[in-house]
Amino acid sequence: VKANLNGTLLPVEDARLPAQDHGVLYGDGLFETLRVYGGRFFRLSAHLERLRLGAAQIALQLPWTDGVLIAALEATGAANGFGDGVLRLTVTRGAGPALPVLDGCGPPNYLITARGLNPQAGSPVSACFAGRHPQASSPAIKSISYQPFVLARAEARQRGFDEALLTVDDTVVESSTGNLFAVIGGRLITPPLDSGCLAGITRAAVLEIAESALGSKGKPLSVEERTGSVRKRDLLRADEVFLTNSVSGIQPVVRLEDHTYRMAPGALTGLLQRLYRELVARETAG
Amino acid sequence: VKANLNGTLLPVEDARLPAQDHGVLYGDGLFETLRVYGGRFFRLSAHLERLRLGAAQIALQLPWTDGVLIAALEATGAANGFGDGVLRLTVTRGAGPALPVLDGCGPPNYLITARGLNPQAGSPVSACFAGRHPQASSPAIKSISYQPFVLARAEARQRGFDEALLTVDDTVVESSTGNLFAVIGGRLITPPLDSGCLAGITRAAVLEIAESALGSKGKPLSVEERTGSVRKRDLLRADEVFLTNSVSGIQPVVRLEDHTYRMAPGALTGLLQRLYRELVARETAG
Repeated sequence: VKANLNGTLLPVEDARLPAQDHGVLYGDGLFETLRVYGGRFFRLSAHLERLRLGAAQIALQLPWTDGVLIAALEATGAANGFGDGVLRLTVTRGAGPALPVLDGCGPPNYLITARGLNPQAGSPVSACFAGRHPQASSPAIKSISYQPFVLARAEARQRGFDEALLTVDDTVVESSTGNLFAVIGGRLITPPLDSGCLAGITRAAVLEIAESALGSKGKPLSVEERTGSVRKRDLLRADEVFLTNSVSGIQPVVRLEDHTYRMAPGALTGLLQRLYRELVARETAG
Repeated sequence: VKANLNGTLLPVEDARLPAQDHGVLYGDGLFETLRVYGGRFFRLSAHLERLRLGAAQIALQLPWTDGVLIAALEATGAANGFGDGVLRLTVTRGAGPALPVLDGCGPPNYLITARGLNPQAGSPVSACFAGRHPQASSPAIKSISYQPFVLARAEARQRGFDEALLTVDDTVVESSTGNLFAVIGGRLITPPLDSGCLAGITRAAVLEIAESALGSKGKPLSVEERTGSVRKRDLLRADEVFLTNSVSGIQPVVRLEDHTYRMAPGALTGLLQRLYRELVARETAG
């Protein structure tokens, strides 16, 4: 079986994508699956149009004309002796920095892979309901199918913000790169794991150290994992908001949409930052 | 910058993953981002535990002991002169057939990439709300971040079914590999594009040909894209149900959960299959 990588035909076993390609690191790419009938593509132009629509939506500039892609598809079909078969055209963001960003990525790569027809294609199938839409992935899974987060963050950047807070209806689940906490009336709140947020390592560490912290009234901080997660309006009237992840630790949010918090870091966020630094120092001591 | 691919240290530019790896084709893999402080990992065991929990959830057998992964992480940190920095451990499903399946894939690959610290890490950030949870990707985007669909289909197979119908609450959006149609009382219905389904090329072709088809009463078939999409119970009392995609064309559903349809293909499904074959033959004629 022959594949086509950026115009070069080669045995599919030898086709490799750079590990720095964000298609590999973040699932940041698109594909089209094309059916070939007697050496001819069915609705090739509709597939290429959908590819270009998708590329525009994810701000991916495709450097290839339709003519280039069609020639590559035809060459790959011919190299595999199609006939009848299936070609998949995959385009990826290209190599970039080891961060979920769009800037500094590229050029994109394209890859065409081929397969024969399954003799059962089109025959009757049985089906079941999948309990939830699979796009709502499990919080325990830190998947490389990360494109939705990449795009949410890119949209935030485009709007002049650093981070995106991911919402479902009017509740907030997490940020595009970490978990979310708020301090409201001396209580620390965070969306529970069953909200669909990631089971963050730093989130767990913050919940640990929060128990030893003192709230604004000098009493031990009360920690609450909000059932049904945290509402947008809770965050906008919060005293303090911060984000957590393994790389940045505790990140104060200074501004949320057009609301600016009085202090960033606020008193409690600053205290938790210090306690977190101390925890890290203790656990990573030589 | 040095990367580590399955135990081999090499310049990151030279690290490449096979195009047949389902991590590349379907975003089917996991990752962990680890912060290194003065040459020591913070909560490495918690990261590895989350990786193993995630692997178990996606039925990915990791062939490496913690000792192997820890040694590889330490070697990669040392090769990059850490100090303080960030390592990312990526594990992928491994090479497999060009289909969204788990069977026949592997062995898994692991890749460790390294980066320095962003000097702004931990400093205050601005944030905005992202209009919808980004896991609900746009129907126009056929993303390689495909793992949720792979897993839904694998779950269906495990339950003894061929396909999974993806639901949101009590409505059905699409199948794990295509669009969904039902015939109810002589009308053809399908979830509308704003339900979150893919804008399928075959879906569009079926909507075209349905206009020339005749319903059970000999009158032109009425086609309806159901607002708010199609409910589970609509499907269970439908006369006919079928799935569409570019590879298989029109696939009759013979059984849905414990309900078996009277005929598969039903009369109208069979008619549409014939009209679709004729359309394909016309458009791909030499």
